[in-house]
Amino acid sequence: MSESAYRPLSNDDAIAIARDITDLFDSNDNLLCEEIGDGNLNFVFRVYSVPEQGVPTKSIIIKQALPYAKVVGESWPLSLDRARIEHEALTIQGRLVPDLVPQVYAYHKDMAYTIMEDLSDHTIMRKGLIEGNQYAAFADHISRFLANTLFYTSDLGMNQQDKKRQVERFINPDLCKITEDLIFDDPYTVSDNNNINPAIMDEHEKLCQDASLHVEVMLLREKFLTQSQALLHGDLHTGSIFITEASTKVIDPEFAYYGPMGFDIGAVFANLLLNAASHEHWTKDHSKRDAKRDYLIQTIKEIWNLFHDRFLQLWHSNGVDRLSFNPAYQEIYMKRVLQDAAGYAGCKVIRRVVGLSHVADIDTIADAAAKERAERLALAIGTAMVKRNREIQHIDELIDICQSAFKGVHTS
Amino acid sequence: MSESAYRPLSNDDAIAIARDITDLFDSNDNLLCEEIGDGNLNFVFRVYSVPEQGVPTKSIIIKQALPYAKVVGESWPLSLDRARIEHEALTIQGRLVPDLVPQVYAYHKDMAYTIMEDLSDHTIMRKGLIEGNQYAAFADHISRFLANTLFYTSDLGMNQQDKKRQVERFINPDLCKITEDLIFDDPYTVSDNNNINPAIMDEHEKLCQDASLHVEVMLLREKFLTQSQALLHGDLHTGSIFITEASTKVIDPEFAYYGPMGFDIGAVFANLLLNAASHEHWTKDHSKRDAKRDYLIQTIKEIWNLFHDRFLQLWHSNGVDRLSFNPAYQEIYMKRVLQDAAGYAGCKVIRRVVGLSHVADIDTIADAAAKERAERLALAIGTAMVKRNREIQHIDELIDICQSAFKGVHTS
Repeated sequence: MSESAYRPLSNDDAIAIARDITDLFDSNDNLLCEEIGDGNLNFVFRVYSVPEQGVPTKSIIIKQALPYAKVVGESWPLSLDRARIEHEALTIQGRLVPDLVPQVYAYHKDMAYTIMEDLSDHTIMRKGLIEGNQYAAFADHISRFLANTLFYTSDLGMNQQDKKRQVERFINPDLCKITEDLIFDDPYTVSDNNNINPAIMDEHEKLCQDASLHVEVMLLREKFLTQSQALLHGDLHTGSIFITEASTKVIDPEFAYYGPMGFDIGAVFANLLLNAASHEHWTKDHSKRDAKRDYLIQTIKEIWNLFHDRFLQLWHSNGVDRLSFNPAYQEIYMKRVLQDAAGYAGCKVIRRVVGLSHVADIDTIADAAAKERAERLALAIGTAMVKRNREIQHIDELIDICQSAFKGVHTS
Repeated sequence: MSESAYRPLSNDDAIAIARDITDLFDSNDNLLCEEIGDGNLNFVFRVYSVPEQGVPTKSIIIKQALPYAKVVGESWPLSLDRARIEHEALTIQGRLVPDLVPQVYAYHKDMAYTIMEDLSDHTIMRKGLIEGNQYAAFADHISRFLANTLFYTSDLGMNQQDKKRQVERFINPDLCKITEDLIFDDPYTVSDNNNINPAIMDEHEKLCQDASLHVEVMLLREKFLTQSQALLHGDLHTGSIFITEASTKVIDPEFAYYGPMGFDIGAVFANLLLNAASHEHWTKDHSKRDAKRDYLIQTIKEIWNLFHDRFLQLWHSNGVDRLSFNPAYQEIYMKRVLQDAAGYAGCKVIRRVVGLSHVADIDTIADAAAKERAERLALAIGTAMVKRNREIQHIDELIDICQSAFKGVHTS
């Protein structure tokens, strides 16, 4: 890659590119641009036309990778190759679940940007959940996203030699390193990268000293490091999901790589569980708290059941692996994916409480005592999921682990 | 790769290259060349000087990949990229176990050849075992080959981001496909690729119908397809090992790729077991048969124990993964490698009896009844190893499985 041809875009550049490349805008459209990214890893330019008499605004997004990551004030170099990876992942997802990802209009390799559909009419799902919204179509949508993207990129759903070439294109060391450090390492040790509420330092000490927890984290990390099972999104939290009542769009697959399917499924579970834990802020109305939780827990169960049935349906109808249609093998396969999902969900819950990057669901709880309760609750769920992941035989057992954690915190 | 620059070498080409590239030969040496390969996948030229008064012969090997594979009379295209892979694997092995692989003098990418040390003073180990030789240093040597090459190319022994780039360089779809078909597929189905002694058709029918065997084969195949644990030799049978009393040299790593460690270890076990099964040819002197078997079984046990101790020793002294020094994790890790070794050994034994490519150990048994007994015995061992691989907790259990199979055949 000739990275020398790279330079960060200005707002004016973004407008010029938008006018040039897409046929969305007319030459006499009055275009404006705002940079709406968080500026840590990427620029995100929204270019839009000023609405005129009767003509509504038209808009696109230009996402450009920056050659460094800015975290806790520091910056470290980060390969621009992740823009290629994100674009290739979006393209593959766009083929498999066209209605569930933003449409891609163009991609510029040297400048490391992708032009895509603007989803400003959607809400970031994390924000929606914090506001108390429920999304009836979400379980259906996300289970289809998971089943289709994971099945069709695995050895079950695509030619096994083509898959090896695809694995090669998604070797993603820089972004995997972020996951390896922030999810599987820092939370279990004393690290400058951690960000821990002083009120729960006792919990972090427990995380650091629990050798049987560490064994499970190591086994999950080993799978993350070595199992090229399917092309993952790689960062499928509720901040990577745009949503409305009727529509779900998964964005930002720059962490895409070949890994264990349970890692993506677990990410969704973890972020629903973090929101469930955050409802400790209902300090007076416990029935509201419990209703929110029930909705989230039911959603997790529904996602798994829909994913499970869809994945098996695809396996039966479109499986390319003649040898794989053995019911006992399929049962083991699906059980392992469930166990992995539980384990990775637990790791992700834990890291969002004590690691570098928290979630607004919990961090924005104003009442300090409620926030502390939410954090302890999240850690109880996360720890139990990690420690017991290899025992789980059925989604109901995963649900039971969560329910017990909710009860345990309220009775202890 | 500019494959257009490629052409198959003639003997004269080989002599010219040898004279040109190496400083081994003097300009006035009288050089001769013979092509000693089996001609299925590669040319193997041996270039040597005619010995003159007091000057012994000097020699080198030039191995050139052919752009096709010739098997059962047919030919199918095969990427020349495997010559690069073989050369890179030899280079890495040469760094890790310099005394256990041939020395490499040069490599030509476009012409797909590697110039290396001539090992004509060694014997192919399979031939040596068939002749009844025992190699006292072998367990020590091969366990060091396995421990060093597997440890230092895994996430335990090398930087985990560099390892991902190394995985990328060893994506090897063409050669993996051969393994996937011939080891994990054909033996369990009716296939033109199979080569089955008509006397044991009943055994093959059993292999085709045993659903619980198929589950284990599928799980082992899944690991082969998805687990990038370490850089494997990929074809570590006794025909890929040159040996003397004092020296062991592992050759031909063109199947090298990132896979489960147990695959290489199991290949060694399988070929010792195939030789053990072949001793049915001692139809009169059972004590000789049993002595040969005991030696081979003890060698397997010794290889595992030495490998296990060396690998853990490397882990403790040179492990780069700060998080991995958890004794319970290490125990699970080593147990899984043993289980994989048992499972892959079983698959490899089975395929050498009913699959395309047999071993001379059994195929050269002159007495038809003894040969049939040897084949049935090998299948009994292979099937038991595959079916029970996930139960095995200790090398003694693996040894027991073999001993029971030996006894079972002789009492039934």
